[in-house]
Amino acid sequence: MSIPATDDDFTTRARRIRLACFDVDGTLTDGRLTFDSEGREFKAFHVHDGQGLVLLRRAGIAVSLVTARRSPIAEQRAAELGIEACTGVGDKLACVEGIARSQGLDLDDVAFMGDDLPDLRVMLRVGLPAAPRNAQDAVLQAAAWRSRFDGGHGAAREFCNALLEAQARLGPLIDGLLQAEPPGIGARS
Amino acid sequence: MSIPATDDDFTTRARRIRLACFDVDGTLTDGRLTFDSEGREFKAFHVHDGQGLVLLRRAGIAVSLVTARRSPIAEQRAAELGIEACTGVGDKLACVEGIARSQGLDLDDVAFMGDDLPDLRVMLRVGLPAAPRNAQDAVLQAAAWRSRFDGGHGAAREFCNALLEAQARLGPLIDGLLQAEPPGIGARS
Amino acid sequence: MSIPATDDDFTTRARRIRLACFDVDGTLTDGRLTFDSEGREFKAFHVHDGQGLVLLRRAGIAVSLVTARRSPIAEQRAAELGIEACTGVGDKLACVEGIARSQGLDLDDVAFMGDDLPDLRVMLRVGLPAAPRNAQDAVLQAAAWRSRFDGGHGAAREFCNALLEAQARLGPLIDGLLQAEPPGIGARS
Amino acid sequence: MSIPATDDDFTTRARRIRLACFDVDGTLTDGRLTFDSEGREFKAFHVHDGQGLVLLRRAGIAVSLVTARRSPIAEQRAAELGIEACTGVGDKLACVEGIARSQGLDLDDVAFMGDDLPDLRVMLRVGLPAAPRNAQDAVLQAAAWRSRFDGGHGAAREFCNALLEAQARLGPLIDGLLQAEPPGIGARS
Repeated sequence: MSIPATDDDFTTRARRIRLACFDVDGTLTDGRLTFDSEGREFKAFHVHDGQGLVLLRRAGIAVSLVTARRSPIAEQRAAELGIEACTGVGDKLACVEGIARSQGLDLDDVAFMGDDLPDLRVMLRVGLPAAPRNAQDAVLQAAAWRSRFDGGHGAAREFCNALLEAQARLGPLIDGLLQAEPPGIGARS
Repeated sequence: MSIPATDDDFTTRARRIRLACFDVDGTLTDGRLTFDSEGREFKAFHVHDGQGLVLLRRAGIAVSLVTARRSPIAEQRAAELGIEACTGVGDKLACVEGIARSQGLDLDDVAFMGDDLPDLRVMLRVGLPAAPRNAQDAVLQAAAWRSRFDGGHGAAREFCNALLEAQARLGPLIDGLLQAEPPGIGARS
Repeated sequence: MSIPATDDDFTTRARRIRLACFDVDGTLTDGRLTFDSEGREFKAFHVHDGQGLVLLRRAGIAVSLVTARRSPIAEQRAAELGIEACTGVGDKLACVEGIARSQGLDLDDVAFMGDDLPDLRVMLRVGLPAAPRNAQDAVLQAAAWRSRFDGGHGAAREFCNALLEAQARLGPLIDGLLQAEPPGIGARS
Repeated sequence: MSIPATDDDFTTRARRIRLACFDVDGTLTDGRLTFDSEGREFKAFHVHDGQGLVLLRRAGIAVSLVTARRSPIAEQRAAELGIEACTGVGDKLACVEGIARSQGLDLDDVAFMGDDLPDLRVMLRVGLPAAPRNAQDAVLQAAAWRSRFDGGHGAAREFCNALLEAQARLGPLIDGLLQAEPPGIGARS
């Protein structure tokens, strides 16, 4: 069950966030690693999640994908959404610290959403660790926010919505969309 | 929970519909944007939904896909079903108004099924806005009809069936199918 | 809910079956029609269903796929399983009647599993019409047997198991498997 | 429902395990056999399961994939995880006996996770037979451990976690991960 955005601790943590980092496989995807008989690899992202990452960016929150797996697919998806991707990352904590430092941010200003053991070390250090419903137990225990959706099925979008609501940005973003279709928002998600 | 076809408000709205427009990703698909390591993109439609769009067309209701994403796949699927596709659409409201006007229709004669924020503006204007079960909250609130199925899992078909029933066309269509297999109906879905 | 194999009517019907025909999209697949940006088409079968079709064949029940859609994929899958495939079929009833006649069978000796309106006409004529849980309402009403699984998620296998149990063939087939791995059964599913 | 790791019988069996063998289709995948219109085949593994197999290996438990189906995809996935793959296997019991013997192990030291009838014979002989939730009934009955997840949705990972916990290895592995990101663990899963 997700911790509601009205929860005091969540709101306090969420208001500080200026950088949101996301693991890829199992967090932004449903965890499936698909292969074909000729060696190609396939990955499926959810359109709702992409829209959420774009909304974060529009609200001034930096977004980065951080994955241990080398993945041209994750890089391509990040480029399409106009966000950063760090792939083939050996040490996720060092990677996230580097991104934060380059933006003059403290780890308390950073959110990280992950689903498995390699995400645990960075999640124990950032200001707002989050996890999809079907994350591994140790990861769920480390998370300050848990989605009611599985990875790749809108967990990341629910987290983006909760962050934006805590920062009182979701309503204004929706109002803006209703005034006029902003160029490219849909095409980008 | 879907609003039953006997619901007065739904029936009144549904009887007027002469044009039904559908968002693609998350509405006619399960929201997955699949990519391979060589840059190809993949999309999955549901055979039940395709059959529903064909039934609408057979009942004299025009059908159009309307998506912000550039998508040769959506165009190919639309061609296969014998319906129109507007892809890479920046302003969905303007697009739907244009289609309606070209057919001499008013926005009250139009249904639109969508699942995310870029669909909201057009949904607040058409006669019958509809949404799959897993649409974003703001979209569910704007919908006059909500499916009990998720996008890409038969939500659009359930909506087609409800429209046809409200117009007293579903029974006759099924009876027609039982008399003789109409050429091409199956091959088209 | 599936009608249990002890149900008198089901058992009576199932004991006669010598030919089992299956629709493809939505019955042997989960209904997804996947396309890529270069025009290729994709279809996913379930390994449990394939095993079920092989078991029917081993029990002396002929098996055929019958689909309105032109589909080299269905033909390839059928060949792999050593069964017949009729694709691009305009009139499913005529097709099934033809197969039955060529084997000296009556429509009462035939089972047909389908999920949507184009299957309805043949289902109303065969001895044992069956449907996956997520079939269209009119099809569920026409079915004498309904799976507790969705199409492409083991519905066909559950039907094969029920048929084999009604004919008292499932136990002996399993016993045979336990004596010695029969050559090719696994490789074929 | 999975048998908890505190269950005496499970713990006794699990403590002996030095080799864990896994069926592929329906056990390490969701059972989908996907094909395209040009004859290619596709298979989807779950990132959580891959991580589990890597953790077993790190705990000194040998891991092997054993599948009746010829499958370059399974071989590629096994190579990526640094484990063995036996594909195109006619007799799974003989294959597992051979692997065990080559490592100086007894069948009591072996776990096997499978989901369908061709797995039954080997499962009745090994020390710890396990099955995903959606395995065939006869297989579920033969299993000493049953996952609360379906095949391809984390069933194998839950089994790996249970094995490691019974051998008191899961906590130390997690603690090690928290000290420093071990090179390659993430990249390998």
